[in-house]
Amino acid sequence: MNTFGRNLRLTTFGESHGKAMGGILDGMPGGVKIEMDVIIRETARRRPGQNHLVTARNEKDIPELLSGLTDDMVTLGTPIGFIVRNTDQRSVDYGEMAELYRPNHADFTYDQRYGLHEARGGGRASARETLNWVIGGAIARQLPCMQNISVNANIISIGGIKGSSEELASVVEEAMKRGDSVGGVVECVIEGVPAGIGNPVFGKLHARLAQAMMSINAAKGFEYGDGFAAATMYGTEHADIFTSKDGHIYTETNHSGGIQGGISNGMPILFRVAFKPTPTLLRDIDTVDKAGNARILKGKGRHDPCVALRAIPVVEAMAVLVIADELLSYND
Amino acid sequence: MNTFGRNLRLTTFGESHGKAMGGILDGMPGGVKIEMDVIIRETARRRPGQNHLVTARNEKDIPELLSGLTDDMVTLGTPIGFIVRNTDQRSVDYGEMAELYRPNHADFTYDQRYGLHEARGGGRASARETLNWVIGGAIARQLPCMQNISVNANIISIGGIKGSSEELASVVEEAMKRGDSVGGVVECVIEGVPAGIGNPVFGKLHARLAQAMMSINAAKGFEYGDGFAAATMYGTEHADIFTSKDGHIYTETNHSGGIQGGISNGMPILFRVAFKPTPTLLRDIDTVDKAGNARILKGKGRHDPCVALRAIPVVEAMAVLVIADELLSYND
Amino acid sequence: MNTFGRNLRLTTFGESHGKAMGGILDGMPGGVKIEMDVIIRETARRRPGQNHLVTARNEKDIPELLSGLTDDMVTLGTPIGFIVRNTDQRSVDYGEMAELYRPNHADFTYDQRYGLHEARGGGRASARETLNWVIGGAIARQLPCMQNISVNANIISIGGIKGSSEELASVVEEAMKRGDSVGGVVECVIEGVPAGIGNPVFGKLHARLAQAMMSINAAKGFEYGDGFAAATMYGTEHADIFTSKDGHIYTETNHSGGIQGGISNGMPILFRVAFKPTPTLLRDIDTVDKAGNARILKGKGRHDPCVALRAIPVVEAMAVLVIADELLSYND
Amino acid sequence: MNTFGRNLRLTTFGESHGKAMGGILDGMPGGVKIEMDVIIRETARRRPGQNHLVTARNEKDIPELLSGLTDDMVTLGTPIGFIVRNTDQRSVDYGEMAELYRPNHADFTYDQRYGLHEARGGGRASARETLNWVIGGAIARQLPCMQNISVNANIISIGGIKGSSEELASVVEEAMKRGDSVGGVVECVIEGVPAGIGNPVFGKLHARLAQAMMSINAAKGFEYGDGFAAATMYGTEHADIFTSKDGHIYTETNHSGGIQGGISNGMPILFRVAFKPTPTLLRDIDTVDKAGNARILKGKGRHDPCVALRAIPVVEAMAVLVIADELLSYND
Repeated sequence: MNTFGRNLRLTTFGESHGKAMGGILDGMPGGVKIEMDVIIRETARRRPGQNHLVTARNEKDIPELLSGLTDDMVTLGTPIGFIVRNTDQRSVDYGEMAELYRPNHADFTYDQRYGLHEARGGGRASARETLNWVIGGAIARQLPCMQNISVNANIISIGGIKGSSEELASVVEEAMKRGDSVGGVVECVIEGVPAGIGNPVFGKLHARLAQAMMSINAAKGFEYGDGFAAATMYGTEHADIFTSKDGHIYTETNHSGGIQGGISNGMPILFRVAFKPTPTLLRDIDTVDKAGNARILKGKGRHDPCVALRAIPVVEAMAVLVIADELLSYND
Repeated sequence: MNTFGRNLRLTTFGESHGKAMGGILDGMPGGVKIEMDVIIRETARRRPGQNHLVTARNEKDIPELLSGLTDDMVTLGTPIGFIVRNTDQRSVDYGEMAELYRPNHADFTYDQRYGLHEARGGGRASARETLNWVIGGAIARQLPCMQNISVNANIISIGGIKGSSEELASVVEEAMKRGDSVGGVVECVIEGVPAGIGNPVFGKLHARLAQAMMSINAAKGFEYGDGFAAATMYGTEHADIFTSKDGHIYTETNHSGGIQGGISNGMPILFRVAFKPTPTLLRDIDTVDKAGNARILKGKGRHDPCVALRAIPVVEAMAVLVIADELLSYND
Repeated sequence: MNTFGRNLRLTTFGESHGKAMGGILDGMPGGVKIEMDVIIRETARRRPGQNHLVTARNEKDIPELLSGLTDDMVTLGTPIGFIVRNTDQRSVDYGEMAELYRPNHADFTYDQRYGLHEARGGGRASARETLNWVIGGAIARQLPCMQNISVNANIISIGGIKGSSEELASVVEEAMKRGDSVGGVVECVIEGVPAGIGNPVFGKLHARLAQAMMSINAAKGFEYGDGFAAATMYGTEHADIFTSKDGHIYTETNHSGGIQGGISNGMPILFRVAFKPTPTLLRDIDTVDKAGNARILKGKGRHDPCVALRAIPVVEAMAVLVIADELLSYND
Repeated sequence: MNTFGRNLRLTTFGESHGKAMGGILDGMPGGVKIEMDVIIRETARRRPGQNHLVTARNEKDIPELLSGLTDDMVTLGTPIGFIVRNTDQRSVDYGEMAELYRPNHADFTYDQRYGLHEARGGGRASARETLNWVIGGAIARQLPCMQNISVNANIISIGGIKGSSEELASVVEEAMKRGDSVGGVVECVIEGVPAGIGNPVFGKLHARLAQAMMSINAAKGFEYGDGFAAATMYGTEHADIFTSKDGHIYTETNHSGGIQGGISNGMPILFRVAFKPTPTLLRDIDTVDKAGNARILKGKGRHDPCVALRAIPVVEAMAVLVIADELLSYND
């Protein structure tokens, strides 16, 4: 359950407060030049502490690549092992908090699933795990089959507000001042995927994207094309009429979001992911401890008020892994 | 790509206009009494021709169970093979239509994926495939571990209208009269799942539900708990405060939809699936043929104006298969 | 556990005394003409009752192909579902024997694995299951990528005797007369596989062949190339010296059996499978019943004295499935 | 293809001359105390340079465990990531040899599979990869379900000679003096596995053991119970007669090797693996270069004359991984 993908498989490990995060990317063909700069750039995008809207934790997050590459960084076709040390792993002291169930966190469900003795295994529920995914995505992005494909995610609304970057920032700042957090929606557009990618029945391209996106911490919904709005429409409104130009067949509109019957149609693939507000608040909250006693959870520390913002490079990384996995099934 | 599940695996076959649909349900433990009536009831629910809102196609859709059972219908722990003959398989003549790309159908993408010679393979894109899923779900529903679990799906809006059954029916009828179709949203509630079911990282319970639901024909979106609405909320609004009664810990609200960190928390599991309008219309539509020439697609025949209605038992069947698969991983 | 293969997957069902055997072959590409004659020929080869050395059971064993094919038997790229009815399913009455543990049969281990209530599930342990494999192999054999590949199995020794067909036949007849059974070794040669097929580490070509062959009923050993004899040799004896002719590199000898490091080297792939004597004897044998009481198992009925003979087409079918699975991973 | 197992999955990486070897063991339940001493002991057993019969390469081979454990080495139920640095990675200079195909090595087949640019990927063909397996096995061996199970492998013949440890050693020494190498057979006995472990059809316990053992470098054959000798026997000789004592049913003999119908019967599981002689010789050998030109491969350096000796802990590790994987499917 720590492996994602079929032809291109990412298997990961690491607790947020353990020694290291890491993974193995298996299925990369040989002969691909890997630029470390791309990996550093992508991990930097998801790193906390970049600006005042995200937390101040400061870790370098640059992976060491341990296998699968020549000295001059060309893939060998063998699995690429990587690790990232957790530099401030021992400085965190949750103390009494370890006894309290934080609302909307996985504390309670992990206890139910694994029993109390594995509480620290909850480290796998940390968003720090997504660092592994970003590294995997940053490598996969460099595949030849991905070179004409762009994968771009953006935040399109925060707290229900759509607007300019400044307007969205002010929604986050207002929440932050109140010790509150706020949800948001990330939209991702994938351009350049040729028609004919994906599978019918249980391997539908959008079903794989849905599974990938719903794996991201705090994700609550996934839709592609018109998504939930399609459920409010009539067939005549939603139809993507086919047309052709110079022998190339395409649709005039893109209500379908680039996928029909689970297979890409050559139009941009477009989907959205809804993220809930960060569950950790800088306020006191009523809760219970593991024995069921009423307690007060003190708000303190440092946390992102809007996880949707940090999810952007993660959405892209998972989209890259899905698309690359599909494309490799035709080229292997 | 025609297999779903891990511990309980459904593998299916069948083209809508071929000889038969069928499948193999592998992973059922032995000693489970299977009632044929439950299977007949579930397949009847998805059958076209039940009422004036769905198509008039009339097939019995009662499977023959070929293995995995004693004479008195007790499971042997071996795979259950089943088939359903396609009784009116040869009567359909799509004629010229076979040359035209129907908007929002999989005709074009299948051609791109498989090449023209396999056009008829498009029969796997037919909603008739979901009959196999309903049969699989109807068997899995009878597992002992499912006996205290209820899985109930309902339509909650059609064409953006929420309302009583009569109001929703009139939306469909109006669309039908105009030769149009209309989208809808199905909500599913699963009650009785104990806390602690699911997995972290890539096996999150809601990610598996998302993949399952997005496999259903015409599905455009999936959300659980507050879903996309959570993206418009503040952390203080969205928090599910823990409380306890007689030593039992639970949450006062259920914004989370019964799942936290990918694992059930003992509250009802609640999710919604958005379905687009049926792409087939009883009107003339502009399109192109396989050579890219502009053509008119004549509306004719019989089709469901609202696929969301027929999807209800399919949503339930897929939810049953996901939950049973998870539960069997603890009991095997 | 009823599925074999990765790109070309055969999933099977059926108890020997149930309604039908059957399976789904998933992963066949489209556009392949399937000759029913090939399937009939292969199933006839494994059918009991062909000659006086094998049992007299008389079933037609011709499958009905239910999906995945056009009317003129061209594959659609969709899963091929097939069934074979068990015509004399109800005529068998094991009676009291059902209470006795037959030596070297799976009766006792199935009881331990599944509990007594699933005793009839033992039908999956019957060699009749291999009919499904032969059907799957007979379809896969018709893939374009298999057309220049020959897969031929032969019996090379029976009861430790190597010799002509007549000599081997007389060993079987002698055993038969005494109500005894006898083991044998099947050798398989696969010619025409290009160099470079297979995988390192856990997907080695010979490891997959070993798994496939050891799945066949009564198989006790697998070896390829020099096999166990290689363990008695010195490196200088075992070396396959490379040479070249007209730019084509090959080895002068084939101690390696056509595979080095898990990957084919272009030489014939050669392996052997050891089969134990049929466990059922036509003599009285001491045994115990399910309660552990000493009992006598009466020898009666009809059984093959030498399962190795009937295994020949099964060895070929499994070899075809392994090789085709590998080849499809390059062509998909 | 770098992953082994179903419930307990080992995924590995590393080239013999790269930065590090490593892996991820996923599926270990929580609460298991891991003794580092056991891991060190097992890796020491397979390390080259232990005595004069194996090569002098000197690496510590002690893994760093990076995740999945508390500070006091108790498993968390999360994946255990580990790495072992390759300390003398850069000192090896194969020089001209890189252009020559070594007989019975994977050089030629890797070139055919992956193309010349990935030649260094051949590092995955090195027996150093088995270090990862021994580490995985040493962790799995400490599972509670393995505590009453013993897994013991021993060399039973070298160069066809069976005898005392001294006799076998002298066979190796003689070969060594001549710059030659020699094959051998390893026998493994697993005691304490309860009856009822394994699966019918494609998941047979001996088929999984066969696949595991044939994954080991230089393995040429696998047999269990009487193995190839069973093919020379009559049914009356090979029968394992059931008997019972104090209600416990068992067989008087163990021709079956502890497995019937793919499922353990409670008797010791016994199998043998044949290993070919080390292909590298300390003599000059005729070969060709990548262009097909006749060349002389100079024998030099240091190599094990008998890989079967070093395979002993690897056979045990793979057996542990198979048995633990099966046992965890009942306890998860």
